[in-house]
Amino acid sequence: MQRYFSKQTLEVNQQIQLEKDDNHHIVRVMRGKIDDEVIIVDSTNIAYKAKIETIEDNLANLRIINALEDQQTELPIQVTIACGLSKNDKIDLIVQKATECGMNEFIPLALDRDVVKWKGNKISNRIERLERISKEAAEQCHRNVIPEINHLSTIDTLQKEAGNYKHKLIAYEETAKKGQHGQLKETLKEVQAGDNLIIVFGSEGGLTELEVAKLKQVGYIECSLGPRILRAETAPIYALSAMSYHLEV
Amino acid sequence: MQRYFSKQTLEVNQQIQLEKDDNHHIVRVMRGKIDDEVIIVDSTNIAYKAKIETIEDNLANLRIINALEDQQTELPIQVTIACGLSKNDKIDLIVQKATECGMNEFIPLALDRDVVKWKGNKISNRIERLERISKEAAEQCHRNVIPEINHLSTIDTLQKEAGNYKHKLIAYEETAKKGQHGQLKETLKEVQAGDNLIIVFGSEGGLTELEVAKLKQVGYIECSLGPRILRAETAPIYALSAMSYHLEV
Repeated sequence: MQRYFSKQTLEVNQQIQLEKDDNHHIVRVMRGKIDDEVIIVDSTNIAYKAKIETIEDNLANLRIINALEDQQTELPIQVTIACGLSKNDKIDLIVQKATECGMNEFIPLALDRDVVKWKGNKISNRIERLERISKEAAEQCHRNVIPEINHLSTIDTLQKEAGNYKHKLIAYEETAKKGQHGQLKETLKEVQAGDNLIIVFGSEGGLTELEVAKLKQVGYIECSLGPRILRAETAPIYALSAMSYHLEV
Repeated sequence: MQRYFSKQTLEVNQQIQLEKDDNHHIVRVMRGKIDDEVIIVDSTNIAYKAKIETIEDNLANLRIINALEDQQTELPIQVTIACGLSKNDKIDLIVQKATECGMNEFIPLALDRDVVKWKGNKISNRIERLERISKEAAEQCHRNVIPEINHLSTIDTLQKEAGNYKHKLIAYEETAKKGQHGQLKETLKEVQAGDNLIIVFGSEGGLTELEVAKLKQVGYIECSLGPRILRAETAPIYALSAMSYHLEV
């Protein structure tokens, strides 16, 4: 069943209209008809079954039928993915796939070796684009939570906000090259349901030694994602898949 | 260091020219100069350091310097990914990412619900394209093995060839929906170094009940890849990442 997110807090029997883009989707793309059923997830992350009651002037009015049983599609820990600025299509792919794999929050990071720079107007355009991508991916993979796209940050911001995260990892190629592959598993053995975890990834250019040193100063630990060199856009998917496998499967 | 594959069996001190596309890459793309060093992996999967000796008429002559110590970049088991025919860009992405994540063999599968059909000339063109993608990805992620791209197969072929694989899995959405997530881990607990394993994925349309039943007849077991619904191109990356995490990290 098609899934939409609403910014409202919903209750059974309420009548509701979807936001502009979602209304367009249900009326024009899905060609919704009276009595068609959809799922609407409200601002408190509760999923409801809803039915199209009327369609007037291309505007669908829906009626909330009942709350759906919680399907537990969220990772038991809250994972923040902080990534250097890869080329646009790569960062789009990261956000889409990381949403499917259970990410809770995304932080775009301006790093020394980024090939791409976000400046001026571009910043808010890029953030809005990533918000759309995470919302669509969350609908598509049946999640009740849309991952938040954070503002553009730096290593210095991460240093200041280090206290916000219980577990702090850096995916660092140099660790992999040394053949030390155990840290990710060590960390995941320690996490408990409800914990939060942040993991930092470089862009195509990787992280500098200084950036890694700054993060280590505030408690970040380097970890390897196995013996093969993963592309910038593959590494976050590997990390989240490993977390899901360890915690959910 | 840039990495190339050669179809020859190499030895130290040998002089060698790369294949046409790789020669173009080293001379024109990398703008290689005399004494530049590269890695060449030979047909027996041994990696050698080599040096550009001369460049004449856009043709580089390289000298093999020494064999490199084995960096163990291969998964300890041989994993075959068999996938329904997704749209072209998706199947390209699957082969590229699965190569990075350690896949050993790829089987394109013609399934009932595939949106895309491969016919006539298109088949060999598509296979050649996937071969190029797997070779480039293997070079890029520092592997010594190029995953083989198999010919176009069907569920009936997989039935006949079931004896070739020790462990046989089906990634099946319906298993995930029932909340039964343990099978992948159960299987991975049983594998031993050197085993081979095949895992079958549907395309965007998924597998039919009949296709799943046919595979189960010959010993395939259904498994879930966690509680979220993954896109066709995400599921193989999840599975390989989980295998790498279980076996290598």
